[in-house]
Amino acid sequence: KELFSDFEKDYGIKHEYLDHEGVYNRAVEQGTKAAKKLRRLQKERNPGGKEIWPRGIYDASSFGIFPANSPFTIHITMFVDVLKGQGTPEQVEKWVGLAENCNIIGTYAQTELGHGTNLRGIQTRADYDRKTQEFVLNTPCLQAYKWWPGGLGHTANYANVVAQLYIDGENKGIQMFLVQVRDLETHMPLPGIDIGEIGKKIGMHAVNQGFLGLKNVRIPRDQMLMKNAKVMPDGTFIESPDTKLTYMTMVYTRCLIVKMDSVYLLEAATIAARYSAVRRQSPINPDDPEPQIMDHVTQQLKIFPEIASGVAYDVAAEQVLEYYNETMQEINNGKYTRMPEAHALSCALKVLCTTDACAGIERLRLACGGHGFMTAANIGNIYGNAVAAYTYEGENTVLLLQIGRFLMKSWSYLVEGKQMLNSVEYLRQGQEKNSFQKWDNSWECIINAFKYTAAHKTRIAFESFSERMMAGQTQPEAFNNSGIELTQAAEYHGRQFVAEIFCKAITGPRSANFSPPTKAVMETLVELYLVHITLRHLSDILRFIPLTEADVKSLQRRLEVALQKIRPEAVALTDGFDFDDRVLNSVLGAYDGNVYERIFESAKMSPMNKKPVQDSFETYLKPFMKSQL
Amino acid sequence: KELFSDFEKDYGIKHEYLDHEGVYNRAVEQGTKAAKKLRRLQKERNPGGKEIWPRGIYDASSFGIFPANSPFTIHITMFVDVLKGQGTPEQVEKWVGLAENCNIIGTYAQTELGHGTNLRGIQTRADYDRKTQEFVLNTPCLQAYKWWPGGLGHTANYANVVAQLYIDGENKGIQMFLVQVRDLETHMPLPGIDIGEIGKKIGMHAVNQGFLGLKNVRIPRDQMLMKNAKVMPDGTFIESPDTKLTYMTMVYTRCLIVKMDSVYLLEAATIAARYSAVRRQSPINPDDPEPQIMDHVTQQLKIFPEIASGVAYDVAAEQVLEYYNETMQEINNGKYTRMPEAHALSCALKVLCTTDACAGIERLRLACGGHGFMTAANIGNIYGNAVAAYTYEGENTVLLLQIGRFLMKSWSYLVEGKQMLNSVEYLRQGQEKNSFQKWDNSWECIINAFKYTAAHKTRIAFESFSERMMAGQTQPEAFNNSGIELTQAAEYHGRQFVAEIFCKAITGPRSANFSPPTKAVMETLVELYLVHITLRHLSDILRFIPLTEADVKSLQRRLEVALQKIRPEAVALTDGFDFDDRVLNSVLGAYDGNVYERIFESAKMSPMNKKPVQDSFETYLKPFMKSQL
Repeated sequence: KELFSDFEKDYGIKHEYLDHEGVYNRAVEQGTKAAKKLRRLQKERNPGGKEIWPRGIYDASSFGIFPANSPFTIHITMFVDVLKGQGTPEQVEKWVGLAENCNIIGTYAQTELGHGTNLRGIQTRADYDRKTQEFVLNTPCLQAYKWWPGGLGHTANYANVVAQLYIDGENKGIQMFLVQVRDLETHMPLPGIDIGEIGKKIGMHAVNQGFLGLKNVRIPRDQMLMKNAKVMPDGTFIESPDTKLTYMTMVYTRCLIVKMDSVYLLEAATIAARYSAVRRQSPINPDDPEPQIMDHVTQQLKIFPEIASGVAYDVAAEQVLEYYNETMQEINNGKYTRMPEAHALSCALKVLCTTDACAGIERLRLACGGHGFMTAANIGNIYGNAVAAYTYEGENTVLLLQIGRFLMKSWSYLVEGKQMLNSVEYLRQGQEKNSFQKWDNSWECIINAFKYTAAHKTRIAFESFSERMMAGQTQPEAFNNSGIELTQAAEYHGRQFVAEIFCKAITGPRSANFSPPTKAVMETLVELYLVHITLRHLSDILRFIPLTEADVKSLQRRLEVALQKIRPEAVALTDGFDFDDRVLNSVLGAYDGNVYERIFESAKMSPMNKKPVQDSFETYLKPFMKSQL
Repeated sequence: KELFSDFEKDYGIKHEYLDHEGVYNRAVEQGTKAAKKLRRLQKERNPGGKEIWPRGIYDASSFGIFPANSPFTIHITMFVDVLKGQGTPEQVEKWVGLAENCNIIGTYAQTELGHGTNLRGIQTRADYDRKTQEFVLNTPCLQAYKWWPGGLGHTANYANVVAQLYIDGENKGIQMFLVQVRDLETHMPLPGIDIGEIGKKIGMHAVNQGFLGLKNVRIPRDQMLMKNAKVMPDGTFIESPDTKLTYMTMVYTRCLIVKMDSVYLLEAATIAARYSAVRRQSPINPDDPEPQIMDHVTQQLKIFPEIASGVAYDVAAEQVLEYYNETMQEINNGKYTRMPEAHALSCALKVLCTTDACAGIERLRLACGGHGFMTAANIGNIYGNAVAAYTYEGENTVLLLQIGRFLMKSWSYLVEGKQMLNSVEYLRQGQEKNSFQKWDNSWECIINAFKYTAAHKTRIAFESFSERMMAGQTQPEAFNNSGIELTQAAEYHGRQFVAEIFCKAITGPRSANFSPPTKAVMETLVELYLVHITLRHLSDILRFIPLTEADVKSLQRRLEVALQKIRPEAVALTDGFDFDDRVLNSVLGAYDGNVYERIFESAKMSPMNKKPVQDSFETYLKPFMKSQL
């Protein structure tokens, strides 16, 4: 906390009142100052210990200290990681130090104007010139312009560029090339480099995302990252022995995204909970004073399930990260069986968390009524930063379809009696209709209901898919035409997983560390989470499991009881997340609860209020009012 | 269209790159120029005819020609309307001409920092001073500051201020006072007036919403609007004979909101449909070229139901406007019976349309992948403008609870055998369980299923409410504790209504005007709409109606067939909405489909790209990179 004490407040004017250039220039100032400060603190307080830099910048950008994020985030994370992970020992030796010391600033240039998710469609090309032992990089058409890399606009002077490698005109697939894009002294774009920023976006305003066109840009042979595939001086191409490890990097990245978006969700929930404890509106009994709006049950329903959901995703991400580490150990020992399941789980988690977190953040903003519409509430900004993850690192629908493919494969294994991966063992329940245990209202029963429903959703998707093939469609056509049912099955694959993981984490051996009051609150959160998602997914559950009206009514009452139980704990619970006021950056959600004073103070700080009359009055408004329109 | 030909494009820089003041000052310039131009065209082309001004400004602001809306919108609509509707003939004579000619610019100041929806909680007070025959207006505390009125910040010099009237210290309820807030010559705030703007918001950036504090501000007696309640010179208070007409104004306003948000939804759908016809991604059959993304069934599901939904709401709003006119005629003849039902229907429509339109717009933005995140896609801006209506003119949950109250009353009429209003006749079906007709898959059957489900949701809410009262809770407490079920019942009250209205409009006598191809497309939209909402609401439908697995499967297939049928019509259908490129204002959704060229051109126009190196390079970035961090 101390590290970031003076990072935004010393500027007097909030970032949202700066113009586009102003936001960027301030972000460069803040980022460079922050880096130096973190390094100094590292040396003073933690010499030789775990580095707080650069992780500190990543945290500051991702969780709100830098409310507009930072042009350095991609440099700190992906640029450095990719050099380390895909460079030869010589390349790591030569470049990683420069990058970690920020002597060069880099970015990761993969997505193009015309291609994102379908990586194979990338059109940027790198032709090997045997005579000079160089690669010649080109952007063959407008759609092949690199588009979106963070920091590429005006910050980076290097980029890891993803391109199709050609040797003697023959395509050798996608490789990575380290390209210098700006002069180290003047920062001017180098010859053949067409570079700039892509314009304003609805969030992440300081990330300085850029475009890049290349025209006959030459780089030496040793600037293709060659840990895996290699090009020899004479042009011989040596294929990568294994591409599976890069695949696992995506698993890891997706877990980080889930951590990030679950935190954003909990930030928004904290703001809405605090505001709802201060705002008073509409007496419940006509003669009583106006209650805190949190006493309205409909308001509780808007806030408390989001708290439960944020905690559930946070717990689930931890779990998948552990699973990732185990899988990586197995992979290092040459065992790859778990990989598809790690991939499917991380995809499902990423899709569900970003979907639920974004919808939740917006519900929480709307739960703050009109005041949530003010920029100073900061929930809009949190949303803008959180929602980017819905479409990046694998667009959500595309990921669901990949999970769908995994489920189809798993189902055919089941049908064929082959061995199943642990995470899809539950599919067996889909083989027999009307086989669900008696509904007994327990948590276990609810989790089983999700597994059972997920299994039957997979069965139905498989049946549709098979019917279409039998009717003469090709497999890909049948797959596309069954897309709706496949994505639904994929969603349930994630739902049953998160429900189980969350419940186990709170009831399992780890919960021994909880104090009794903490355990009680956490158990109420699990109860709320499970009952709430059950009621939300009755559409499918009721198709397969014959709940009675009394069962549904009982779930509804349990929902109401859980909300009631959380009501007195809600503010303490969100205080417990320990978000600094600077992180929440919200007039509605500060720790002291001085909502109205803060709103008013913030409005007074709007630059428009610095002068009582705006320039347009004399120029346009006065003549207009006098003109006898 | 011609009217607005040069309103934004002549400025060279798009509004999103201006700072907060710049956006405002340009909006004043554009608004005043537009008003003069519209008046001139009115005189030239349509002398004595239906006024295109001021309606033209309202349309331009509401539907996208002014992408940041306008500081004059409230003046043109509510300020003038309230003077006309609530002023005495003398007041109308004195003020309406000045307002319509824009010799004065006004706003409507009702909401306060601490009170919005609960109008009775308004704290601004107006004390009558018999000696001087003046009202003395005061803001007694911070929370009583007026907050949110459009144009109040730096534009208006008058405001209709809603305040508690006190005569001899006795409260006479809420009245409206016309208060001058700025000097007509200098535009400086008048003595006792604390005025400014409330700061940036997540949409409607040019509306110049403001705050207002009043300290002993005196206005003459004849500036209380006295069409209804009156204060005589000697301080005698004459109560309003009837407050019901102001109540009907809200019905009208809500229909306008539904028209507005359904248009916003169709704008976003047009952008997403056009982009999906240009963007190519991920071959369906591995050896085929990449298809338009609209060929992916999952993409169709994201776009086509939103088109159907936008058309349905537009049709429903027309219907309620007609119903409004009929009700007003009845009221003028002294018959008030229909009023509660008009109120409940308009509330339901406003809630459902703003909820569905906003969720739909955001889904459509996400359907454009990463590129939807760019400001230049304009869907984010459309969302920001549309979503404001979720919380204004009656916050959605509060409105649902009002409908819930109406439904509880209607149900008790039913139980007591009293006469029912037409719009709730369907509730009878809730009296008997398991009484639904055989499911036959027809449109009529689906609409009946919604009515039947709505009736049973109301029954369940009523049972919960009654049980709680019998358990000793007061009526308001029981109502609050049953809030979740009440809001759900209220939602279904609206759903069954919209489904029926939409279906009737397309199949009923009016459809005789459609050409056969139009009728065919419209019928496919109805099919899609009905099947889609049925699948989305199975959670409740399945509780009350025993659909078989085969029934559900058949609905799923019908959904897929409807999507397939719309696929070849989709672009033509959205072209048919005839949105001008200037209205859509989107690089992704222009009529010519030159998506990539427009994205690139727009990025090049970002002010940051006017110079190759930003100022922060020499100041911060270069020293940082050289510093051996």
